[in-house]
Amino acid sequence: MEQVRLGIIGIGGMGTNHALSIVKGTVPEMQLTAVADIREIRRSWAKDNLPGSVAIFDDGRKLIESGTCDAVLIATPHYFHPDFVIYALEHGIHAITEKPAGVYTKKIKEMNEAASKSDKVFAIMLNQRTNCVYRKLHEMIESGELGELKRVNWIITDWYRTQAYYDAAGWKATWDGEGGGVLLNQSPHQLDLLQWLCGMPVKVRAFCHEGKWHDIEVEDDVTAYLEYANGATGVFVTSTGDAPGTNRLEITFDRGKVICEHDKLLLYKLSESEREFSRTCPDGFKKPEMTVSEVETDGKNEQHTGVLKAFADRILHGGKLVAEGTEGIRGLTLSNAMHLSSWLDRTIEIPFDEDTFLEELNKRRATSKKKTDKGIVFDTTGTY
Amino acid sequence: MEQVRLGIIGIGGMGTNHALSIVKGTVPEMQLTAVADIREIRRSWAKDNLPGSVAIFDDGRKLIESGTCDAVLIATPHYFHPDFVIYALEHGIHAITEKPAGVYTKKIKEMNEAASKSDKVFAIMLNQRTNCVYRKLHEMIESGELGELKRVNWIITDWYRTQAYYDAAGWKATWDGEGGGVLLNQSPHQLDLLQWLCGMPVKVRAFCHEGKWHDIEVEDDVTAYLEYANGATGVFVTSTGDAPGTNRLEITFDRGKVICEHDKLLLYKLSESEREFSRTCPDGFKKPEMTVSEVETDGKNEQHTGVLKAFADRILHGGKLVAEGTEGIRGLTLSNAMHLSSWLDRTIEIPFDEDTFLEELNKRRATSKKKTDKGIVFDTTGTY
Repeated sequence: MEQVRLGIIGIGGMGTNHALSIVKGTVPEMQLTAVADIREIRRSWAKDNLPGSVAIFDDGRKLIESGTCDAVLIATPHYFHPDFVIYALEHGIHAITEKPAGVYTKKIKEMNEAASKSDKVFAIMLNQRTNCVYRKLHEMIESGELGELKRVNWIITDWYRTQAYYDAAGWKATWDGEGGGVLLNQSPHQLDLLQWLCGMPVKVRAFCHEGKWHDIEVEDDVTAYLEYANGATGVFVTSTGDAPGTNRLEITFDRGKVICEHDKLLLYKLSESEREFSRTCPDGFKKPEMTVSEVETDGKNEQHTGVLKAFADRILHGGKLVAEGTEGIRGLTLSNAMHLSSWLDRTIEIPFDEDTFLEELNKRRATSKKKTDKGIVFDTTGTY
Repeated sequence: MEQVRLGIIGIGGMGTNHALSIVKGTVPEMQLTAVADIREIRRSWAKDNLPGSVAIFDDGRKLIESGTCDAVLIATPHYFHPDFVIYALEHGIHAITEKPAGVYTKKIKEMNEAASKSDKVFAIMLNQRTNCVYRKLHEMIESGELGELKRVNWIITDWYRTQAYYDAAGWKATWDGEGGGVLLNQSPHQLDLLQWLCGMPVKVRAFCHEGKWHDIEVEDDVTAYLEYANGATGVFVTSTGDAPGTNRLEITFDRGKVICEHDKLLLYKLSESEREFSRTCPDGFKKPEMTVSEVETDGKNEQHTGVLKAFADRILHGGKLVAEGTEGIRGLTLSNAMHLSSWLDRTIEIPFDEDTFLEELNKRRATSKKKTDKGIVFDTTGTY
């Protein structure tokens, strides 16, 4: 196999952008051989805009069964991600799913179970992990040089969306179609990075505001407080209603502090352990000595292309994925916990009761309002 | 009266620094005529280090009754602030109290009641209000140019204190001696600025961690979530255990965002209302146009000296105070609400039940451990 023959299931906003990118040759080891969409308007678009060699299906399962693809990229509404992954893997097809892994962790466990039984590659589009700033920070934390985690604060409010964004697609921002708002659609990247960098918290207390900035039924504004097993605490704030928003990650460790903002990584490095200093310094107001520097990175930030290149490389040569598909459950566990905390108005311990979550979600799905799908696809370049 | 004759009650950490500053002539319209401290070691220090003309008392009430002072500055442990203010005003003496106004709002109401019946000046040492950055921001918000409040996030963790700080004074960081930790001693400045700039929230959910970073019984780490009447939300994070800490205030409004950090005020100004833009823009991913600039201020930041100058000016010439004494209740209402929320493990609405707060505080006072007072006074210059 010289090239991976890729099928894309779901050519809405993200799927369309992936299709056009692959057709342009951005992923040399991958060719687009098929697309599937249940909407006639999108299949018609595909016929008009994609090479004639690309097979078009009205059902993702038909695409998987067709023999036209070695691998599928799943870019459907979130609820369908796990089912298509399972279907693909069970049919001997490699699978990469868009984020989030799905809508509720109980279902993700079924998907991960299927993956564990399959010898096919399973990846997830956690493209922000390709960002040199987060990669470098991950490396620094793993090395142990910063010491133990004390505090994390991520203000990730630069996911601005207008009302038109929500009005464009029928499934978006509904409990039944999408299963959530900013936590499911925009912030999964940061929720994944948060757990990738800081590990999983043991407690979550969140305040999700539904339809606060937009005429939608799901949350578009979230503030969450986190507690980690070692006592460290965190704050995660996200919204699609802030202009201009902020993307500022600050993490404090025993031996220093890092700030990621404006694509830069600032390091405040202490000369010694703060814990040790506090216990031994005879002066009440003194602080440990510190140096401040901007950390150099390799500057590479391939985003979606990087994830797809690695996916092809794994299939063809056994290389390393940007993110294993089975890791998607972690960010979703955070978002499920945040939703549940807000719904039940109390602190949620992780692991939480997945049946309670599903019950609460289903209550909301039952009264979810149908929206008209206008089939509008915005150019999402640079919006991830 | 050419100069206000000032007496200082309590010459521990802050009182000592105020005394030395006034003796140096930093407040031309004020002279130090008396000090009082119940501790012999501090009176002995006063005898050795202050001019012979300064009368020394072993009780603040004796100082107030002595006829040596027109005004008193109260720098005792917080519990005693309201009693000395009331005693002074009732004896026809002007009063300025160190922050916080006291420990519990129920008591502050008695103090404010006494102030309302007195024709003497009552001020509070909210010296951070003299900072040109906050003054300018206050002016901008009051003008209405930024529009309605949407979100505030203050990370104020640069109140680093070592264990030695807490070991130095007997009353500090105990429920019975101080009545709280970082919320009562360090953060009152920011709690006051927060309400001065954003108004009072209607709900508070806080997570106070007691003795987390130090061997103390009160909180040295707090994360609080706030909700305002108009739906705006906020986060307030403070600690004395972070090195290097952060002091970053970000406030988002309908027409822009401001960031106060490193003594600079950055303004992100939208060309139009975000709310209006979101409703009318046909593009899903577009954002309102924006300009970024550093806001010029008058550069003045007189801190304690500025507050004392204004206090003397009000007494002598009827000028404007930096902060009316009666305004101290607002910041304390925030800290009381944060404590109560954490103690009861639930969201607190403002106004909260003051009897419940006092009951909970008194439970903690009842089991509070006595510490030895070493009478150590650190140089606090530049630590406010």
